[in-house]
Parts: sequence; C-alpha cells; structure tokens
Amino acid sequence: MKLVTYRASIEAAARLGVIADDLVVDVAALAETQGKKLPASMLELIDAGRPGLETLRDCLAAAGGRFPTGTAMALANVKLLAPIPRPRKNIFGIGLNYVEHVAESAKTLDTSKDLPKQPVIFSKPPTAVVGPGDGIEHNSKITQQLDWEVELAVIIGTTARRVARQDALHHVFGYSVMIDVSARDNRRAGQWIFSKGQDSYAPFGPCIVTADEIPDPHALDLWLTVNGVEKQRSNTRHMLFKVDDLIADISSGITLEPGDIIASGTPEGVGAGRNPQEWMWPGDTIVACVEGIGSLRHPVVDATPE
Amino acid sequence: MKLVTYRASIEAAARLGVIADDLVVDVAALAETQGKKLPASMLELIDAGRPGLETLRDCLAAAGGRFPTGTAMALANVKLLAPIPRPRKNIFGIGLNYVEHVAESAKTLDTSKDLPKQPVIFSKPPTAVVGPGDGIEHNSKITQQLDWEVELAVIIGTTARRVARQDALHHVFGYSVMIDVSARDNRRAGQWIFSKGQDSYAPFGPCIVTADEIPDPHALDLWLTVNGVEKQRSNTRHMLFKVDDLIADISSGITLEPGDIIASGTPEGVGAGRNPQEWMWPGDTIVACVEGIGSLRHPVVDATPE
Repeated sequence: MKLVTYRASIEAAARLGVIADDLVVDVAALAETQGKKLPASMLELIDAGRPGLETLRDCLAAAGGRFPTGTAMALANVKLLAPIPRPRKNIFGIGLNYVEHVAESAKTLDTSKDLPKQPVIFSKPPTAVVGPGDGIEHNSKITQQLDWEVELAVIIGTTARRVARQDALHHVFGYSVMIDVSARDNRRAGQWIFSKGQDSYAPFGPCIVTADEIPDPHALDLWLTVNGVEKQRSNTRHMLFKVDDLIADISSGITLEPGDIIASGTPEGVGAGRNPQEWMWPGDTIVACVEGIGSLRHPVVDATPE
Repeated sequence: MKLVTYRASIEAAARLGVIADDLVVDVAALAETQGKKLPASMLELIDAGRPGLETLRDCLAAAGGRFPTGTAMALANVKLLAPIPRPRKNIFGIGLNYVEHVAESAKTLDTSKDLPKQPVIFSKPPTAVVGPGDGIEHNSKITQQLDWEVELAVIIGTTARRVARQDALHHVFGYSVMIDVSARDNRRAGQWIFSKGQDSYAPFGPCIVTADEIPDPHALDLWLTVNGVEKQRSNTRHMLFKVDDLIADISSGITLEPGDIIASGTPEGVGAGRNPQEWMWPGDTIVACVEGIGSLRHPVVDATPE
C-alpha cells in the first residue's frame, strides 16, 4: 500500500490516506463506513502495528475499488504533506554510504577516502521536515553552498533495541524518499547537524510504501534532477551498509521507535563533488525519485532575512 | 520556582510538581483546590507560557505554605523523573564551549586547539534522557571509553526562529543540569551522535529552575565527582558562547520550540583529558551539580548484552 498524509483543502485537518489508482482514500472514514476503526494519522497507524495494516487491507478489499461518497478524492485535488509531518525524534542520516560518493566527498569535503568501517550516523531535527512541493529555504546570509542528496528513507515500525541483523528488516514499516539538503559551508568543527538540520532541509514523501511491497530495498533505482538536468542516478544495491546493517548498528546503542526515520545515504553526483562545484539557488527546481515509491518536486526559495 | 516531574509511587503516573521547602506540591491538584486549572505535565506548563507560571505563583501565594491533603508529599518520598521525560526533539549539545576544555580536548581527542569561531552544535536523541538516580548504561561490547561532562541545560520556553542575541534570553523557560555522557571510542568519521546519543547518555534534572530565579546564567559554579572525587569544577562565566549567543545562533537556521533543551557545554576535567585517561565503569557513582539548581547522582551500570 501507498500511504499518504494529506489535506483535502488548505483549511482542512491533516488526514491519513491510502492511494487507490488516482484516488486518495481517507483511511479512518473508509473504515467507519464498514463499521471498523482505523486511525486518522500515520503515526497512529504505525503504532497499530500489523493488525492495523491488516484491517486496512481488509477494508480496501471489501470496498473493491468503489468508495462511498466522502471517503475518496482525486489525488490531483489534495495537498500532500510529509507522510509523517512531525517525527517524534530526530531523523537519523547516514553519511558516506555509497562507494562512489565516498570518493567524490574525499576530493572536496573534509572526509576520508577510505570506506567507513561502521555507518557514519548524523541527525536532522524533526523541524527540518517539509512535505512535497514545499520550498527548500535558501538563506544567503548563512550559505552559498546549498547541496542536494537523494536518499531512500526507511520508516521504523516496531521498537528496535539491540536487534540482530537477521531480524532487523522485521522492524521496518515501509520506505519513502528524502532529500538530505546540506549547506556544505555550515559544518561546525566537523559536526553536520547545523549544515543538514536547518528548517526545510528534509523534504520527505510523497508517500510511505509498506514494506511488503518492497521485498528487496536494495534493488531500487534512485535519481535526482536540478531544473530538469539529471545530477544523480544510482541504485540502492550500491549502499555500503544495507538497511538491515543500519538498523542493527543504530539499535546497538540507540533505541529505534515506531515512526523513526533513517535516511540511508546518497549516491554520487552531489553538487560539492562536481567540477566546477554546483549549488542550489532560489528559483531552482529539485526533483528526487526512488523507484517504486514516487518523486518529490521542490522549489528552492529565497529565505534570506532582511 | 523549582519544577519537577515525579511519581508518588512506582505505579503512579508522572505528575508535574513544584518544590516548597522539603515538599513536592502537585501543581494540577493545588490549582484545583483553588478553583483554578493548571496542567499535570512540564511540557504543558511550558506551552502555557507566562500566564501558566503566573497562575502557579498565585496558587502558591494563596496557599501560604499550607497545602491541602493530597496536594503535597515529602520530597524524600517521591521518585523524581527527568523534568521533561520525553523531549519533543533532539537535545542540542554544544561542544568545545569552555576555553580550558578546548585545550584538553585538542591533546587527546581529534579536535582543534583553536577556539571555535561559531558554536559547535551536535545532538542527542530524546531516547537518551534518563532521570535522577537512573543507571548510566555501560556496554562493554561497544565502549571502553565512557566519559563524563557536567553541563548547564537551557530549557526553551517560546518558539525562537532567527532571534537576535538581545532578545534571546526572553525565550528561556528555565535551567537544569545535564550530564553529556560520551563514549569517546564511538565517534564515526568525526560525527558525535552515536558517541553521545546512546540510551541513558543524557541524565537530566533534578528540576527546572524558572528563568526569573536565575537572572544571570553566566555566574554559576558547576562541578562533577566520580566516586566522591572531584573531577570537574568551573563556573558558567567561562562559557565561550553564552546562552544568548547559542539561542541566536541555533535559531538562525533551526527553529527552537517550547521544551527544547540546549546542553551548553562542559568545562575542563573530563576523563579523556586526564593523564592517564580515566573512564566510567560499572559500580561508579557520578554526581553532577550546578549552583542554584541541584545535583544529579547516577550509578554506572553494566548493560553489556549476553
């Protein structure tokens, strides 16, 4: 299933939806028409675990593609938000997780040319999240080096503390897309949170695809364009530490919880690694896509304070 | 006022309390006896802003030190939790923010001997928080270099986005104590979140002192002992970037929200900076104190998986 968080109109409350062809079906409203109960938010559905997903599947099957009035809208007519508009904790990002990106980073950023021996974990605050179509803020008083990074995002379904690699994928609720926006000139003594954690630096969506529909998360093409020109293209099979490795590694020290997000790293082709280097500027349009999930399209907007 | 989050018994729900001499007064219950309404949790009180604090002050004044049955308990008989048991986002930590600590770090850690030109921001997940008396977990499979750092914690009261330094302190709700526990051998390509963000690595409390009672946060002694031996002693006047600098700087890119926590950095005397180096081990007792706020006392416990 493809799950979304959406508003039916600008004033409407955020609701949990499931995509059915070109429709968004209101999950809680659909369940109610069948005398069942399902939540109206993504985090509550994740918290409901397998039984929640099974009830939703049953509801969709019972509907048979015919949705009562008031339970479905054309996808084209809704405003999609980030699937989880407000994560409960920081997003975990993974640096230097594609071999070719390690090489390009070593040339122009202050990172080693050697492959990391363990995942390089950093974080982005929940306030960095924006939804599909929202502006990526460019503050020219702070940065002249705003960069793109397309990534497969992993959404945790169940609490994971010290899980073994072979059990790790059982803790995945689903997958999404995230752009790990990075102001390269905002690193502080090597720390990345200010360079990667500013408001709007985590475009996220457009949907969460449940894990059952992505049996192998390491066989997905992913790519990114700037103003229609392809800048990144790779496949998740080139990830150095796979999704199960990442969950096992992070959870060896930090408890992962339902709704937590891991942005699993970016392939080569970032602006910092180009010759000459390229950056994002107000007026640019960034499109990021992961195969089988969907695409994010974001304008870069001038957010320089007066 | 000194505000706490506490349980009246092991099974009891967490409640918001205010300290009155050797008593903990249940804030919501006290208000109710006076026909007023106040919240039962710290985050809700912070969200209530100045009017919430004023109502609480009025309630305490009206009580005049005599609290109706069921509204107060001996402080010695309650279990204190972290003042905010579950922060809404990552904690912001500040590295290298005391001059002498910059020098000791440069000798043994991979940091520069030059003073940082901007605050060195890192983060700890909300899952790292533990309350007074809780164990600091020592996992010998992961670390042999578990270190202490006593810090003044700043609690944000109102949303701060791009605030000027001269306005910054108006956004402070209060102050507390945090130990920034650090597994020095768990840095990853220079990133600190895994070394500083593991479960139990953010002991926090014992209370939040409201900002009105700490007119100058840069005149507070702070110290830390290990098994009764003093390891750190300094004063917050030695902070390189002051509290107003930190709020202005972080909020220039990252929106700070009510209940957010900034751990403002540690002075010299950490284990990594000693000759020979010293680390925390199971069985040790760590006591951290900031003048005018209170002290945290934590055992280090063996949490090595089988």
